[in-house]
Formats: sequence, structure tokens, C-alpha cells
Amino acid sequence: MGKVSAAFSLKHVLVLSLALNVGLILRVLHEGGGEKNLEKENRDAGAGAGAVMASKEAHAGMTSSSSTGAAEAVAGGGDDGSVIDLDHGDPTMYERFWQQMGDKTTVVIPGWQYISYFSDVRNLCWFLEPEFANAVVNLHKVVGNAITDDHNIVVGTGSTQLFQAVLYALSPADTSEPMSVVSAAPYYSMCPLEDYTTCSYAISRPIDSSYPLQTDYLKSGLYKWAGDAYKFSKDTPYVELVTSPNNPDGSTRQAVVNQSEGILVHDLAYYWPQYTPISFPADHDIMLFTVSKSTGHAGTRIGWALIRDREIAKKMTKFIEINTIGVSKDSQLRAAKVLQAVSDSYDRDGNPKESKAFFQYGYNLMAERWRNLRAAVNMSGLFSLPDFPVEACTFSRRAFEPQPAFAWLKCEGEIEDCESFIRKHKILTRGGKHFGVSPKSEVLRNKIFTE
Amino acid sequence: MGKVSAAFSLKHVLVLSLALNVGLILRVLHEGGGEKNLEKENRDAGAGAGAVMASKEAHAGMTSSSSTGAAEAVAGGGDDGSVIDLDHGDPTMYERFWQQMGDKTTVVIPGWQYISYFSDVRNLCWFLEPEFANAVVNLHKVVGNAITDDHNIVVGTGSTQLFQAVLYALSPADTSEPMSVVSAAPYYSMCPLEDYTTCSYAISRPIDSSYPLQTDYLKSGLYKWAGDAYKFSKDTPYVELVTSPNNPDGSTRQAVVNQSEGILVHDLAYYWPQYTPISFPADHDIMLFTVSKSTGHAGTRIGWALIRDREIAKKMTKFIEINTIGVSKDSQLRAAKVLQAVSDSYDRDGNPKESKAFFQYGYNLMAERWRNLRAAVNMSGLFSLPDFPVEACTFSRRAFEPQPAFAWLKCEGEIEDCESFIRKHKILTRGGKHFGVSPKSEVLRNKIFTE
Repeated sequence: MGKVSAAFSLKHVLVLSLALNVGLILRVLHEGGGEKNLEKENRDAGAGAGAVMASKEAHAGMTSSSSTGAAEAVAGGGDDGSVIDLDHGDPTMYERFWQQMGDKTTVVIPGWQYISYFSDVRNLCWFLEPEFANAVVNLHKVVGNAITDDHNIVVGTGSTQLFQAVLYALSPADTSEPMSVVSAAPYYSMCPLEDYTTCSYAISRPIDSSYPLQTDYLKSGLYKWAGDAYKFSKDTPYVELVTSPNNPDGSTRQAVVNQSEGILVHDLAYYWPQYTPISFPADHDIMLFTVSKSTGHAGTRIGWALIRDREIAKKMTKFIEINTIGVSKDSQLRAAKVLQAVSDSYDRDGNPKESKAFFQYGYNLMAERWRNLRAAVNMSGLFSLPDFPVEACTFSRRAFEPQPAFAWLKCEGEIEDCESFIRKHKILTRGGKHFGVSPKSEVLRNKIFTE
Repeated sequence: MGKVSAAFSLKHVLVLSLALNVGLILRVLHEGGGEKNLEKENRDAGAGAGAVMASKEAHAGMTSSSSTGAAEAVAGGGDDGSVIDLDHGDPTMYERFWQQMGDKTTVVIPGWQYISYFSDVRNLCWFLEPEFANAVVNLHKVVGNAITDDHNIVVGTGSTQLFQAVLYALSPADTSEPMSVVSAAPYYSMCPLEDYTTCSYAISRPIDSSYPLQTDYLKSGLYKWAGDAYKFSKDTPYVELVTSPNNPDGSTRQAVVNQSEGILVHDLAYYWPQYTPISFPADHDIMLFTVSKSTGHAGTRIGWALIRDREIAKKMTKFIEINTIGVSKDSQLRAAKVLQAVSDSYDRDGNPKESKAFFQYGYNLMAERWRNLRAAVNMSGLFSLPDFPVEACTFSRRAFEPQPAFAWLKCEGEIEDCESFIRKHKILTRGGKHFGVSPKSEVLRNKIFTE
């Protein structure tokens, strides 16, 4: 380890810094600049929350600076106690785009409007704002990433709440055993459940809302996390969660359990054309989406589900009624305005009407970051990144390889535990063991772009 | 029953109609007027959602009309299938006040702001908007209904989510048996849990988010509803929920279980000077409040908890993180603006600066409705209402008796089952059995003013 550690020099810290904000560090080193510049660049580039840029090697002479007010100082690790935090992300990278859009997506709500609990009592989801529902349908039509016909829309306080609503809705009412919930590893996670009470991530980190944890945190008698779908063989009712593109490794996914008693839940949070080619309009029975990933408005806490079966949609609505008595009207209105603005910036054939259409902006941003990241990783010799197949996108009519909102980085060579190794160098990441793969795995994850 | 039923004439329907919108029916009958007028009056008076004004006896020649777009048509019962729904409320009665306030509480949110998941990472509740926290502290100082010093503020998606967060936070980590949750009957409820799957209320009614249901809907292994606190005698950890003023009967409450292992949770949703005299600033360890009851903004889904113990506040924050990854920023901003406007309309001594200060408006509205309701009930001879003691209010420096946001009406005389009896006459109410009191009880409840 000593040899490896010694070899972990400025160059390698840089690689990981790049994972946070590609291009920024190199520019800073090449062009020089003080803390003020760094702060500005950081904010302009939407460096992401949790970004405390501070490694002394990387930023000679600079002190730690928080990028967007969303950074979290983490004690320990360096002489000045500062670290580079690549553990979780935040979609502030889209901030600049929305700023350039001016007033188009400004929402104005007079104090006397939207006071009621109710939005539309004729709709089975009685707290769904019709304006938001329309915007969802319009956007899917423009992008062509999901079929909304023959589906009920259920709005949720983020897709996080909708995932729990789905589990509640699918649980058999009359069983003594909890329904199994599985997903193919690596899956969206944070902390191995058995370690939860001692797991430093779960205790100290914000945004710990992984699927295993969401399933098991209340020790429900209705459902229970049953781990890796590849290893599931019980002959009982189960839910298989299919996240595509997958968080954390970016791969396109399909169901892996082949049994009759299962119900599939498709988490399509990242199935948008800035991240991955849209190859077909998804038409699954249960599909989850969220504003935080599509347009970057994480603070609004709005997600939506497209549900074919009316009874399942009703039970999901009931869950949200018991859990939070509906979903913020203000946020639904804001989300409606943002989604509609995106739709309106494209013509009927999906061509952008203006030079600054949202998905083009997002695509270019992600493409540039991935180019820089791959270049830096190649330069390092210590790491590797996944290769994705190039595919045609029906929306942009361009062929490209996926450029996920996170990087599934693997340590090559002698390094046994990538997360611990890198942590010694004042960089926080999330290791493979948190995603349901072997604890000895050498992979690590940087949620570099958005959460 | 036949005799009683026959006696249930226009006069008695009127009494119950009054419970929905006191004064309106009499005015309609005395002054005449068509459907359009009724609709307008209904909306102006903030008649409450769920209000389908349709009893033919009461509104000769009028057809059913929905008051605020929040009404729910319920089939069956009458010739034209319409009913008067007094089952649940909605705080639209405050709509007119906020309209008169003009732009003072209008919130404007540009599309590029509040994108991040994070509000203030230095705060243990990292998704709490500082502006909202300040508004909460200021309002409690002005009203004098709660001590905020030495308490942590946790924001929630309504107090509904906060209640569940409290249960999660208080559950012992290392016990095999779920913690007991109790409350003195009658308690905020809707459906007896054992009947949940067949209970028409739970299936057909919106806003079914009662305490027993919130506690048990996921069959949690952490906590379990244990019913009436008066009957609780187990020598194990428990939570006693103290709702004061109590929903549904309006009484001022204190803990009734006297054991060492219990933790008290004070739901003070209705402890505001339009509903009840403020007799002292509450200083409990765990206090819950909500915007829907204090200012009427139910659609924003914002509540707050004042929590003395830092570790409990942290665990509540963790629950909300797993449940919904924080709370809508948009709604927090809106709530902050509304709460601050209320505070700003009073001077340091609690005197209203303007003629139309919020609590004065609310007090007058409730007082008028209760006067009319009591007069109508006295006139009927079939019903009775609770008597409350007159107490001094430190905020308004006025002595008055509580005027709750709901009426706990009792059927007198020969009527055995008040809810069923009244339902036959096309009026939906919520009977005593839904609140943890005997199913043979003759009480019924009309949530006439707000939910």
C-alpha cells in the first residue's frame, strides 16, 4: 500500500477532482486565479452540492470554498480539515440554463390561491394539479420517452415517495409474509442495511434515501428488501425494481428475475436525452419519473408515476394521502411551468425552436464533462470507466453513448479497497459495497453531476 | 325510528346544513336566490371542500353545486343522488382574507432559484429554509403560544409527515416488540383499523390520514397503535399523543397515562387564537404545528415541529430524508411569506397594526359561526353541542370560550346511531366510532370549518 499511496500524487487527486467539476481544476491550474474566481467558476459550472474544493495539492494556496451554499464541510482528513466530497450530487449544474431563460419559468402564486387540500376531486389522484398533469403528458409526447395514453398519473413528493407508494399498493393485503423487493446489483443504495446503525454514511450523510433503506426503514410487515435480483429464487410474490439507465453504473436495464408472481417497477428517472439515447417510448405498467433528474429542480420535490392499472394508482394515491395528505400545490405549479417551458422550446418534430433548448444544453454539458473525465482517467493509469454502446436517439436523431449523471469508476492495479484508499487522500466517494456488490470490490462511485 | 325519522324535517336538515356553512342557508331561504348566488356565497364564505349543497328540502328547487372545486359528489342517498357532505373540511374559509391582503403574501420564484436539495447544511435539518425557520420563531413570539428557545425546528410535508417522523425517531432501535402509540379517546381518526379494508370511509373518502392509520398502515415493526390512552396499562415504552385543543371534540388536553416509560407528543395544530384562548406559551419537548390550521394554507403541505432534544430532531430529519428527501422549498418560501405577514400585522405588544389582522378576522369568523350553530342546535331540540369554559387569552386579552374548527355534535333522545340516522337524510358525517369511542355512541362530528 505504501508504494501505491506514494504514487497517489497531484495527478491522481486531479483525476478525482475532475470527477467533481471537469475542466475547472485544469483551468484553475493553467490560468491561475484566486479563491473568488474558483468560487465563481464553481457556481457557474454548477459544481454540485457537497463540493468542498480544498485539496491543498490540487488548489495550491487556496482555502476551502463552498460552491453553492449547498456544500457540506466534512471534518477530518487534511491539515485544514477540508476534503473533496464526491459522495453525492445536486443538479445545480442546470442553474445557469434556467437563469438564462429569464422569467419564462418564474412562478407567481398569490397568497389566497391554492389554499385547498384538493386539486381535482374528479381525478382518482385528487391532489394532482391538472396543469402539472398536462405538462407531464406534453413533455413525454415531445421527448418520446414514455407512453402516457392508457396510464394514470400519480404525483408524488419526489419519486422517492412514489416508490414507497408503489410498494404499499402492490403488497398483498392478506399475506403473513412481507412481499420481497429486489433489484439487480449494483443498485441505488447507500448503506448495507445490516450496518445501518453504525454506518457512517447513513448517520452523517444527507440524501440517504436508497431503495433498500426506503424499503426497510420502518420494518414494514408488508414488504421487505430481498437484495440482488440475480440471486432471487423464492416462489412468492415479489417486486423487481428495474432502474434504467441504472443508478449507479449507467447501464440500460431489463428485468432479470423470470418468475410468474413478480411485478415490475420501472424507475426511469434518468431516461432523458441529455443522459442517454431515447431508443423507444417506454410503455411499462409502472413507470417512475422525477423533476430533479429531468430538469434539475430537486428542491421542488416533485415526481410522477405513470400507472396502467387504475386500482394500483388508487392505492398509491391512498398511500400519499396517509403519508403527507397530498403533494405541495406550489411545487406542482412550479414543476408544471418548467416542464411546459421545455416542451414549448421544441416544435412538433422535436426540433429546438431556440438555440438554447434545455435538452441540447444538458446534452452538451454532459458530453463535455465525460470527454474531460475520460481523458483524465486515461491519463492517470490508476482508474477505468465503463464503456457504453453507441445508440441512436429518436429524439435528437443523433447517435451517442450514454453519458450518465454519475461515474462508476474502478480502481485498477494493486488497490484493494478503492473507497478507503481514496478517503485517505481527503476525497469522499461511495464504494461498491454500498450498491449491493462485493465489499471487496474495487469500484467506487462519484455522483459527479446530479443526485 | 319511524317517528323520529318523520320528525326529521326541514328544520333539522337546516341545523346540519348550518354546520357546514352557518348563516348561508338561512340567508338563502330568507332572501331567495338561484344556484349562481348559492355558489358565489358558498365560495365567498369559504364553505369548505366536500360541500355539496343539495338537500332538496333545504334548497327548494336548487340542484347540487360544488362550492370551491374541491367538492366531492357522493352517489346515492337522494332522488338526484346528491348529498350534503359534512364529513371533512378544508380551510378555504380564509381565502377571502388572503385575497383582501393583495400582493403582500404573493410569492415569486424564478425558475433558476431553489434548485438544490439543500437549504442550510449547517442546520441539523438541512432542508429547512432559514426564511421559514425565522418566520416560525417570529410568529410564536407574537402569538405567545409556544416557546421556541431551546428547541430545534424540523420542517415537514405537513404535520402528518412530522407525526410519522416522531414515531420513527422515538422507536427504540433494539427492541423486538413495537413501541405502543396511544391517545385519549376521542382521537383524530377516521376508520377503525380492523375494518380498514372494508371501511367505506377509508376507501371512498379523501383525507383519510388519521393517527391510528398513520401509525399502522405499513404494519411497522417499530411502533403500533395501542388505542385509547385511558385504557393503556402496559409496562413498556410508549408514546402518548396529546392533541390540544383536541380534534375532534375541541377540549383542552393533558397527558392521561401516568407511567415512567412514556414520551409525550403534543399536537398543537389548533392552538391558535382564532380557535381557543392562548393561556400560556407551550414549552413541551415535542410540539407539532401546521400551516393548514394556523393560516389555512392546506395546499402548501407545510408543518413544523419544535423539538427540544437534538438527537430526536436529527432522527426526525433522517426520516424525512428517507421518506421524501426533504421538503418542498417552494412551499417553505410561501409559508414563510404568509407567516411573516401575519407577524408583521401586529406590533410588539400583540396589538393589530391594521384593521384586518389575520387572527382577528379568524376569531370573528369562528365566533359568528358558533353563535349561529348554537342557536340552530338549540332550536332543533334533537342535538346538543359541548360547553367549553370561558378562559382569558393572553394574545387577544379577551376572555372567550373555545370555538373549534369542528363541531362535536351529539344526537339526543331516541336516536341510537346518529351517523346512520343522518346519512339516511342525505347528509354525510363522521360518527363517534371513528374516533375511538363506543360504536353505539350517539355522537357525530362535523368538521365544519377546516380540516
